[in-house]
Amino acid sequence: MNFTAKEIALFLNGEIEGDAAVSVNNISKIEQGKKGTLSFLANPKYENYLYSTESSIVLINKNLELQKKVKATLIRVDDAYKAFASLLEMYQQGKQAQDIGVHEKSSIRKNVLLGKDIYIGEYVVIAENSKIGNNTKIHPQVYIGTNVEIGENTIIYQGVKIYDECKIGNNCIIHAGAVIGADGFGFAPAEDGKHKKVPQVGNVVIEDFVEIGANTTIDRATLGSTIIRKGAKLDNLIQIAHNVEVGESCFIAAQTGVSGSTKIGKRVWVGGQVGFAGHIQIADDVKIGAQAGIQGSVKKEGSVIQGSPAIPLANFQKSSIAFKTLPDLRREFYSLKREVEELKKQLKNK
Amino acid sequence: MNFTAKEIALFLNGEIEGDAAVSVNNISKIEQGKKGTLSFLANPKYENYLYSTESSIVLINKNLELQKKVKATLIRVDDAYKAFASLLEMYQQGKQAQDIGVHEKSSIRKNVLLGKDIYIGEYVVIAENSKIGNNTKIHPQVYIGTNVEIGENTIIYQGVKIYDECKIGNNCIIHAGAVIGADGFGFAPAEDGKHKKVPQVGNVVIEDFVEIGANTTIDRATLGSTIIRKGAKLDNLIQIAHNVEVGESCFIAAQTGVSGSTKIGKRVWVGGQVGFAGHIQIADDVKIGAQAGIQGSVKKEGSVIQGSPAIPLANFQKSSIAFKTLPDLRREFYSLKREVEELKKQLKNK
Amino acid sequence: MNFTAKEIALFLNGEIEGDAAVSVNNISKIEQGKKGTLSFLANPKYENYLYSTESSIVLINKNLELQKKVKATLIRVDDAYKAFASLLEMYQQGKQAQDIGVHEKSSIRKNVLLGKDIYIGEYVVIAENSKIGNNTKIHPQVYIGTNVEIGENTIIYQGVKIYDECKIGNNCIIHAGAVIGADGFGFAPAEDGKHKKVPQVGNVVIEDFVEIGANTTIDRATLGSTIIRKGAKLDNLIQIAHNVEVGESCFIAAQTGVSGSTKIGKRVWVGGQVGFAGHIQIADDVKIGAQAGIQGSVKKEGSVIQGSPAIPLANFQKSSIAFKTLPDLRREFYSLKREVEELKKQLKNK
Repeated sequence: MNFTAKEIALFLNGEIEGDAAVSVNNISKIEQGKKGTLSFLANPKYENYLYSTESSIVLINKNLELQKKVKATLIRVDDAYKAFASLLEMYQQGKQAQDIGVHEKSSIRKNVLLGKDIYIGEYVVIAENSKIGNNTKIHPQVYIGTNVEIGENTIIYQGVKIYDECKIGNNCIIHAGAVIGADGFGFAPAEDGKHKKVPQVGNVVIEDFVEIGANTTIDRATLGSTIIRKGAKLDNLIQIAHNVEVGESCFIAAQTGVSGSTKIGKRVWVGGQVGFAGHIQIADDVKIGAQAGIQGSVKKEGSVIQGSPAIPLANFQKSSIAFKTLPDLRREFYSLKREVEELKKQLKNK
Repeated sequence: MNFTAKEIALFLNGEIEGDAAVSVNNISKIEQGKKGTLSFLANPKYENYLYSTESSIVLINKNLELQKKVKATLIRVDDAYKAFASLLEMYQQGKQAQDIGVHEKSSIRKNVLLGKDIYIGEYVVIAENSKIGNNTKIHPQVYIGTNVEIGENTIIYQGVKIYDECKIGNNCIIHAGAVIGADGFGFAPAEDGKHKKVPQVGNVVIEDFVEIGANTTIDRATLGSTIIRKGAKLDNLIQIAHNVEVGESCFIAAQTGVSGSTKIGKRVWVGGQVGFAGHIQIADDVKIGAQAGIQGSVKKEGSVIQGSPAIPLANFQKSSIAFKTLPDLRREFYSLKREVEELKKQLKNK
Repeated sequence: MNFTAKEIALFLNGEIEGDAAVSVNNISKIEQGKKGTLSFLANPKYENYLYSTESSIVLINKNLELQKKVKATLIRVDDAYKAFASLLEMYQQGKQAQDIGVHEKSSIRKNVLLGKDIYIGEYVVIAENSKIGNNTKIHPQVYIGTNVEIGENTIIYQGVKIYDECKIGNNCIIHAGAVIGADGFGFAPAEDGKHKKVPQVGNVVIEDFVEIGANTTIDRATLGSTIIRKGAKLDNLIQIAHNVEVGESCFIAAQTGVSGSTKIGKRVWVGGQVGFAGHIQIADDVKIGAQAGIQGSVKKEGSVIQGSPAIPLANFQKSSIAFKTLPDLRREFYSLKREVEELKKQLKNK
């Protein structure tokens, strides 16, 4: 990219102070600004950097009163942070819009339905009877199984693997290396000590506006569907087992694991490295701290819990503090016990 | 697939009640049945659904006495669950049997030995001197290194990476994104503070009937072999370090990690997110709860343990309950201590 | 490989005892030795194996006095372990040197700069404007985004995905399935309950001599860079969030997760499955035990901590022992409390 202050001010409906012809080809934090980069100042804590930054252009709030001379060209807007975010968004959309067309080094099998304005990169495989919606981008080395449906405006990054029969909604993002629809972990004990695989013939359904992190795995249902409801956001390296349901607008941080058939309500926030037992229910609006172990259902909406096994957050914090001094408590207890023995003797002798 | 009730009854040796000509092309849970799907009823708890389901065909137990009229065509069999499972298995085997041949968009290097009736998908690489057994399926975008041996009837899903020299047995399944044989994490401290890589020149040996989950990583041995014994089942996102041995018929749930040179016995069950220290032994038939931390060897066969560091399960449960009220215990203790001080004074004065 | 004892002794500057013409084509532990393999004996504990091993050649220390007759050809060197390690290194470098050239089944897009003596395997994609340094190896099925720079003597294993704009240094190793530069997990709450994605327009910078394990994920910065400093070693399945900085010569074991904007000092050792909160600082030379949860900054250099929340290691060990008998302590406490009540009564009555 290469934009002048004049072009940016026009896009943002902002006012220029300084050289309108100066141009930028990158962005930076204001404290790390270099010639040719654009920065923003929203937090007054960072105002000092405004007077020393090497950035060529800085977005600032309309009402900011300058204390010193500024080298950069300034663009005054109503809300410098929002203006910056909208620039970034425009920039990213511009980049993605460049990816278009079906690369000749890809393998589109029979009876595949491709929408308009899609992108299919090198070494992608799209298997029989799958459908890809309009404006969806399938980056290189992705595998899409048979009978898969992918909606519109969805981005599937490099190397994602989607097994047969899975459904992905509109406006989703799936990051590199994620695996959607591998077999659930199901085995029936057998008399000879060998375990018999239970066929996993369900699928995975991912609704609209879902984001899935890199190398996350979501297993197909034994029967029926493993479901990620609309607007849920999953971070990297998460494990979602067969027949799980993740509710609308949930946030799940990295390396969390959810065991089979567990149902998580709406707007649940889950920290990193949390583990959920199987076959439990989590109420709406629950918040779960990092590394918690959820062994049973959480029935109260809005609960805030932590620990393994998880207990209310305030309890966990107090108990953790007490845990630190547990050896002292123990020593003092046995000392007190001896004193009480002594008292008993003395009392007897009186 | 499209099967009539007549064809299914014939295969299962069952008896039809209702329209023998009705056909199905999918399966469903009885409570989610739709026209054209087949369901089963095994658990009496769900009998009500039998009278309301929209499924076209339902498998039921021979001896079930109907309480009301049923819309679906029924097929009576000895054991409805087992009959259903055997249908699924037949269906899955039928699907897999369709994948056959070596795709022209693959790269088979020199001196590779390919068995009969194998499948090699698009963008697969099989490096020099490797052998693939009869009836094995290598799905698209898999990498097989040099001198690798893979047995018969094994399925390697999309994008699996198998480094040089590794051996995979017969009847194994390896799910998408798994990495077999990357270097173990070994470095020798050096005087200049920089760490020198210890060459990892061993391999990974996976015996027969093993299943490996999506994005799981199994590192090659420094010297010798990292071994997964026959019939072991590993879930997704598991880390197996160099020189580990996982015993026969072990079950390991997702996101568990096993450190270097640890040896796990036979039929050990391991919950999710468990961590094992290195260079320890776990006896046969041990059961380990989710999120446990195993810091030392577990010598007693059949032990059931949980917690980090792990202790016997019953202890862990009691201690966890006590942990919740630890701040109360602490408060009450110091109150009692003051009372005892008071008693001592009173006694002195008597 | 196939080497005679004479060739090996020449390379190691060692002295041969036995048949100098015997040759080996593999290596093995001395206790697992077979004809045609080379072993070493460094630890006196294993000396017995020297007299029974089937290895064809064994490296031993110069000063070792034999107790019995040995079948293998011996090569005496100053330090048998170091000599063995240098052989392995030579062997591995020899193997890697064989990979050379750009495979015709790869996709090198426009304006890519390729160094000398590089290797690019099958189904690799290198996107626009990227640079690959001299002697770097890019194994099959890797994806390199636009404007990526990779230094010299670096090895990128199969299926690694590197997003746009990331920088990788010299002498690095990145193992199969790692994902470098996926979007950080950043969303802004919105009034309608839907979360708006915060564009992630920074990158990842990996300095020289870094090793990254299989299926590890390192997210790009929101703005600026996520940085892995020189000489840091990361194991498999690790999550590094946006804007994190991992210090020089850190060691991080498998399945650890570091939340956004956290800064880890130099030479920090981190066990497996550790979790770090976001926006904290860890001082230099800190050591952190497996499964720890680091909720706040660790300011003291050289601290050794464990537990979740983490406390000094010695405290954690004592508290964990006390935790085991917590239910007993509790029972005894309430029993003591009743005794004290009784004493109080008795005292009153005297």
